[in-house]
Amino acid sequence: MTQSPAPAPQPPAAPATFHVYDTTLRDGAQQEGINLSVADKLAIAPMLDALGVGFIEGGWPGAVPKDTEFFKRAAKELDLRNAELAAFGATRKAGVRATDDPLVRALLDSEAPVVTLVAKSDVRHVERALRTTPDEGLAMIQDTVRFLAREGRRVFVDAEHFFDGFRYDPGFSRRAVVAAFEAGAEVVALCDTNGGMLPDWVRDVVADVRAAVGPHAVLGMHAHNDSGCAVANTLAAVDAGCVHVQGTVNGYGERTGNADLLSVVANLELKLGRPVLAREPGGPGGLAELTRIAHAISEITNISPFARQPYVGASAFAHKAGLHASAIKVDPDLYQHTDPELVGNDMRMLVSDMAGRASIELKGRQLGIDLAAHPDVLSRVTNRVKDAEANGYTYEAADASFELLLVEELEGARPAYFRVESWRTIVERNGSRGAAATAEATVKLHAGGERVVRTGEGNGPVDALDHALRLALTRVYPELEDFELIDFKVRILDQMQGTDAVTRVLIESTDGQTSWSTVGVGPNLIEASWEALTDSAIWGLRNRGVAPR
Amino acid sequence: MTQSPAPAPQPPAAPATFHVYDTTLRDGAQQEGINLSVADKLAIAPMLDALGVGFIEGGWPGAVPKDTEFFKRAAKELDLRNAELAAFGATRKAGVRATDDPLVRALLDSEAPVVTLVAKSDVRHVERALRTTPDEGLAMIQDTVRFLAREGRRVFVDAEHFFDGFRYDPGFSRRAVVAAFEAGAEVVALCDTNGGMLPDWVRDVVADVRAAVGPHAVLGMHAHNDSGCAVANTLAAVDAGCVHVQGTVNGYGERTGNADLLSVVANLELKLGRPVLAREPGGPGGLAELTRIAHAISEITNISPFARQPYVGASAFAHKAGLHASAIKVDPDLYQHTDPELVGNDMRMLVSDMAGRASIELKGRQLGIDLAAHPDVLSRVTNRVKDAEANGYTYEAADASFELLLVEELEGARPAYFRVESWRTIVERNGSRGAAATAEATVKLHAGGERVVRTGEGNGPVDALDHALRLALTRVYPELEDFELIDFKVRILDQMQGTDAVTRVLIESTDGQTSWSTVGVGPNLIEASWEALTDSAIWGLRNRGVAPR
Repeated sequence: MTQSPAPAPQPPAAPATFHVYDTTLRDGAQQEGINLSVADKLAIAPMLDALGVGFIEGGWPGAVPKDTEFFKRAAKELDLRNAELAAFGATRKAGVRATDDPLVRALLDSEAPVVTLVAKSDVRHVERALRTTPDEGLAMIQDTVRFLAREGRRVFVDAEHFFDGFRYDPGFSRRAVVAAFEAGAEVVALCDTNGGMLPDWVRDVVADVRAAVGPHAVLGMHAHNDSGCAVANTLAAVDAGCVHVQGTVNGYGERTGNADLLSVVANLELKLGRPVLAREPGGPGGLAELTRIAHAISEITNISPFARQPYVGASAFAHKAGLHASAIKVDPDLYQHTDPELVGNDMRMLVSDMAGRASIELKGRQLGIDLAAHPDVLSRVTNRVKDAEANGYTYEAADASFELLLVEELEGARPAYFRVESWRTIVERNGSRGAAATAEATVKLHAGGERVVRTGEGNGPVDALDHALRLALTRVYPELEDFELIDFKVRILDQMQGTDAVTRVLIESTDGQTSWSTVGVGPNLIEASWEALTDSAIWGLRNRGVAPR
Repeated sequence: MTQSPAPAPQPPAAPATFHVYDTTLRDGAQQEGINLSVADKLAIAPMLDALGVGFIEGGWPGAVPKDTEFFKRAAKELDLRNAELAAFGATRKAGVRATDDPLVRALLDSEAPVVTLVAKSDVRHVERALRTTPDEGLAMIQDTVRFLAREGRRVFVDAEHFFDGFRYDPGFSRRAVVAAFEAGAEVVALCDTNGGMLPDWVRDVVADVRAAVGPHAVLGMHAHNDSGCAVANTLAAVDAGCVHVQGTVNGYGERTGNADLLSVVANLELKLGRPVLAREPGGPGGLAELTRIAHAISEITNISPFARQPYVGASAFAHKAGLHASAIKVDPDLYQHTDPELVGNDMRMLVSDMAGRASIELKGRQLGIDLAAHPDVLSRVTNRVKDAEANGYTYEAADASFELLLVEELEGARPAYFRVESWRTIVERNGSRGAAATAEATVKLHAGGERVVRTGEGNGPVDALDHALRLALTRVYPELEDFELIDFKVRILDQMQGTDAVTRVLIESTDGQTSWSTVGVGPNLIEASWEALTDSAIWGLRNRGVAPR
């Protein structure tokens, strides 16, 4: 770590000598709100492999039935190119032989080439949680490592509560690490299980352990983010000699989460000049996949992406239009810490700046529409976007509405799937506090040469309108049956004017295969919602290749 | 920073010698999706003051009209006990005198006791963005600092792009800092404007600067989180001698955000044994307010709290039921990095701290209601709040609704100003895209011994309901004529269920003298709004001392 302006050119460390160990499927799944099925895990693992991690910890076979099944199916169904699967488990119980412990045998049965054993390395946990002696605690580690190593597994050890334990009683914690290596462990990962460490503390402890085990022992770091320093703690451990880093995609995990593996690898590669991800020669993979994979995995975990997430967040390289807007365009490197393309993200200019011709042209290209060939259309679209954004629209989070606007300018009109005659929604409550309100909506429209009138009910006026629109259209467009509203966001844009303010509604829909977002704006929340609902139906039908009937 | 298991007992540094400088209202407001009104800023500032920060950067008077107004109103309306207000602005333009620069004069006119000047300290920005010479760049700093200091202001300097600049050309960056101090700056904050630094880099640069300016110069740190290390970078700067830390509540800010000031102060106080927040003798304040204030501010910014946020997140101390559940109960300190009570959080995830008896008692006292004398009422209120919060209510930002709940439990019922028979709202549109929708609402209620039926119109259904309610009540309660709805916020609480999700509505009202906030929750947005509207009318009438007629 020097003060040179760019990462010093170093002889690249071959990734094989540095372990990137992902535990999204095991420790990440401990996060409140995450519940991964076997199919989810089978879908995520190839993404991690494409990213180029070296190890994928898949779960705890034997202890968790879903995880037993995951390893069974993974062996047959997954074709990993870069990563090896690791089965997580505990050392043998106190007072039994490793070979007789069914949970240890389940690790063998998983057929994972790597087994990662969690081992107590804080003497207080040995005495109070395991309720056994320090010597038996060490024997549990050694017996289990030795047994699994003799059976041909690569054995990694997660030294649980290591840092807290070390700061309480360094002697026992050191002995636990030495015992693991002596028994044949290939890696010992030092865990900040409670997540409260600070970088300097980590560095000091790792340096001490390294002195005890020698420079050739492979030490790793497993950090949690309770002090907000998980990424920095991991880097401090690497600086002190760790060559194995554990973490999770998007920092998923219990409490404040694990170290965000994406930030860790991006910092290692881009800031410290250490290539750590495997890359297929000539192919994609590595950091350039970072943003795509972060978002794809968040679709599966069903956890909304955090816009401010370093490197991959939607806002990570977004600049509010300000004094420096033109300077940023001329000299972007003065205003960003790294090139967003290196991590598959891109520099977004927000709101008013979005209305620049260049960025609209770029956006069109992303949607497969070449606006450079239609300079007049480009001008009209730029003006419309500028006006719309001044009125509260945002197309940053509503690609489908933006695409319809482009189509309208290119083709002269938006696809005429239906013509709305009128709509109405009624919400009412009879009785006082406590009585339930009801909502219904009636839509009158023309489609397929017919006039259709339908009434829908719902939990609220937007839900009722959505149902009524769907009922009115599905006779002519049965494709709509598959469409579903999955997210609905409301923002009041000028909050000082109370309900006279302008409302922006963002709607996300899916047809099971793809999902798309539309926007509506107006002084009336219901009207704004209607706009987003109809845009959603139109874009979905057009995307399916359905012609107006 | 040692390896001792607990923060070493040190002679406490008086907070006056260490600056906690909050820039939520200025740099935090740069976050995508945050748009703070003057009223919002006036509401947030006292919370920051209660937390015990030393400085509150309120905005950029002169450049941003809203901020000019904020400082004007703050001088009259705010009664800060711990914090001083700081006005942010730029050094004078190239080629003019500081006294002739209208933006510099606006800083004086703001009457803020502290002025924080952003100054270019990366020579590339001087040459390419300012398009002037390095010497003129330094003169701009010196002239402006000297002018404002002579006018009696405390002058702080934010050395913009400092770390990137230093790593490119340390000579110029050092000179910029020295120039600022020579001209009379009290503090120079070194800014990692692009946010890409790592802790070791920060430490090395700060140590270099400290050697250049001497140990008595007050250096500060302003970090952004683009490498995921903002908190650790701030701590590294403190370790290297900085005694002024800048950051924002919840880490709000452009791109990946600023350093989360809450994590920074919690780490400084709890991990490093440095008391940095001001506390009122015998009163609340300080770290114990951390979680409450984090959430209250997120209600105002309307940014959903991040559950995994260190220290204050809803999940920060939540444990998934696992093998260790009972062990955690017996020996919680073995499973948490710090005691959640120290930061006003709670180990049990779903019970917010608000639901604690003590904080409800405190809240009652703030409203002039002594609940300690009514332990049975306190129990009932605690249970009701707990239930309500589990269902999506929040009383942190809805004092008026909370007070009505208290009154209801104390007096057996809420004040019976009126009895609602029914209400209905209709929104409809005839014609297609482009035609305007209309909204009307009819309210039937009993007040002053009469049955009243009134219909109101509005821009949307909530506006129409507000008008109808007002029309129906003003005959009996003419006091309502003065009431006005000034803010309306909507949050969808479970966004993955689309419009089936629960909606929370927060309404702020005023009668020209005081303003109050109420909350409503329900699957139906209109019903939730109605609840908040009626609470608003009831609280407003009661506050005026009006008796039910």
